[in-house]
Amino acid sequence: MPDRIIVSLDMMGGSNAPGCTVEGAVIALKKNPKLHLLLHGDSDILSPFMQQFAPFAGRYELLHAATVVADDEQPVRALKYGKESSMRKTIDSVKSGAAHACVSSGNTGALMVMAKMVLGDLPGIKRPAIIAALPNPHGKSVVLDLGANTECDEFNLFQFALMGNAYAKIILNKASPTVGLLNVGVESIKGTSLQKKTHELLTNSDLNYKGYVEGCDIAKGVVDVVVIDGFTGNVMLKFGEGIIKLVIDIVRSSFKTNFMTKMAGLVMRKYLRSSLATIDPKSLNGAMFVGVNGVVVKSHGSSDGLAVSSAVSVAYELAAQDINQEIKSELKAMHAESSAQLLVEKIKKTFGMGS
Amino acid sequence: MPDRIIVSLDMMGGSNAPGCTVEGAVIALKKNPKLHLLLHGDSDILSPFMQQFAPFAGRYELLHAATVVADDEQPVRALKYGKESSMRKTIDSVKSGAAHACVSSGNTGALMVMAKMVLGDLPGIKRPAIIAALPNPHGKSVVLDLGANTECDEFNLFQFALMGNAYAKIILNKASPTVGLLNVGVESIKGTSLQKKTHELLTNSDLNYKGYVEGCDIAKGVVDVVVIDGFTGNVMLKFGEGIIKLVIDIVRSSFKTNFMTKMAGLVMRKYLRSSLATIDPKSLNGAMFVGVNGVVVKSHGSSDGLAVSSAVSVAYELAAQDINQEIKSELKAMHAESSAQLLVEKIKKTFGMGS
Repeated sequence: MPDRIIVSLDMMGGSNAPGCTVEGAVIALKKNPKLHLLLHGDSDILSPFMQQFAPFAGRYELLHAATVVADDEQPVRALKYGKESSMRKTIDSVKSGAAHACVSSGNTGALMVMAKMVLGDLPGIKRPAIIAALPNPHGKSVVLDLGANTECDEFNLFQFALMGNAYAKIILNKASPTVGLLNVGVESIKGTSLQKKTHELLTNSDLNYKGYVEGCDIAKGVVDVVVIDGFTGNVMLKFGEGIIKLVIDIVRSSFKTNFMTKMAGLVMRKYLRSSLATIDPKSLNGAMFVGVNGVVVKSHGSSDGLAVSSAVSVAYELAAQDINQEIKSELKAMHAESSAQLLVEKIKKTFGMGS
Repeated sequence: MPDRIIVSLDMMGGSNAPGCTVEGAVIALKKNPKLHLLLHGDSDILSPFMQQFAPFAGRYELLHAATVVADDEQPVRALKYGKESSMRKTIDSVKSGAAHACVSSGNTGALMVMAKMVLGDLPGIKRPAIIAALPNPHGKSVVLDLGANTECDEFNLFQFALMGNAYAKIILNKASPTVGLLNVGVESIKGTSLQKKTHELLTNSDLNYKGYVEGCDIAKGVVDVVVIDGFTGNVMLKFGEGIIKLVIDIVRSSFKTNFMTKMAGLVMRKYLRSSLATIDPKSLNGAMFVGVNGVVVKSHGSSDGLAVSSAVSVAYELAAQDINQEIKSELKAMHAESSAQLLVEKIKKTFGMGS
């Protein structure tokens, strides 16, 4: 691990920016002594906030960016006209080697397209995906795609499995991660034609593939890697976030019922806070664009300061582990490096499948 | 409301049958004094359980069914060869008028195909959908499709919106339910081509359409009716169920930390039990096949007794409200009765869209 990890942060991305990004940056700097930040954003807008960084002199740099990518901007337009945007500058810092990793809470589609075009893909990877580790009673499982690709084919999903496998080996420290394909049931008759075609590819691969899994299997930790298209993955993840908030609100208001329950609440406060932190969407914020040749972490668009700090910590950890170098080695070990696509082509030929 | 509501129950469906169906039937009979049950299943297998029904003499009838539809049976095979199955007999009771509604925890695909073929569709409805009311802080929202149709086009989704609107008027008692289309973001650039085409149909309809909603908006209750394809809906719902269980387990184990927290647990037990019941997947079990010309309620395949009793209660309530008659009136009022498809055709022509 290097002496310092430099993370490039888009200060203007997200609906609560720059308040949340300033707060998040400060929390992350406090938490990670080796962290250095490159703060990209409009210096006029950011200057009133800069006094908050005083305790961290020498560990941050403010870099002016004249424009901001809007949330409803078409990704291709953002790529073309957003060269001076805080998002683009944030990614450029990784490209130039000035930063080890970058974080943005801005427009997901624009971030993905910019990251792909500026940094390129990992060898053989056709479509990068959003990956995150979600909690279960025994630890975590990694799930992808959580929203980068709303429309996928079986070869995309197959590559997600390859990348998920490599990511899980490193992040979950598993020698042979189990892989599952998300479906509406575990029986072979279940699902769409996309599920069936992907199931065939995975069954005939060298992955430790366990077949179909259902939505409820994720929180049970039935497999280490869960593969799904980005539309379903995104809707599902956000539904889960909403549910967690609803349940916690219900628990919280139960403690407000009467004097005795309020006393019980005083006893429970610190225990519940620490145990529920493991599933708090804010603490879990920050998902990597796996497959891009550089560490790019997407933070939730509605992040607050705590959530931004979590995403910065994710970027910090991934950079500290040199995640992409490890993923490249894994893909190479699976003979997928020269082209993961080649592996797919081989399977296609074997099974006489069209794309 | 009639003097008695007769529900037909598939005693052999679900992975815990017949233990769960017997227990569920008994709980439901205790809870609903006007409930009568037609119990369909293998009488040899069920006879050891029948003493449990002794307190309810005159309120149930055991009807022998020789076979069971397996969970991995192809729906079309089940339709062809399953005429003597408990599932088919359960549906036949609704067709003949012997029962007001029916419930099965068996193979979803087979149940849908049988229900559609035996009972037919509501006028103009092309694809029935699975609908359920999910909790939010202000009440409930209805969500469909939760798993009947894994592949949908924009006209299917449009019809789901029409049916969801009618269902919400009755079940949520709203004069003009708000309708949202589930997507990966609320901006118009977001989502797949299916989302965009459906958005256009809904925007130009008479529904109180509010545009795109995200997964997290369901638990917030942002709209009354949420429309989604059955693949995403099913994965999302089951993911949410897994998450609820995970959160509740975390809360429960926090109370086991030490003596003080155990005392707090004694105080909180009854309050938490009653408040968490509103989001307990078992209490929420039971989702209607809306669009079928008869009340058919799907219960979760892994249901236990409590969950089966919830599904029977859902069927009971829907039958008591004569839900399908109300939905037919609503569709008629929207000029959709002669054919909801006609409405779709009209919009198709107006926008020069192919199907």
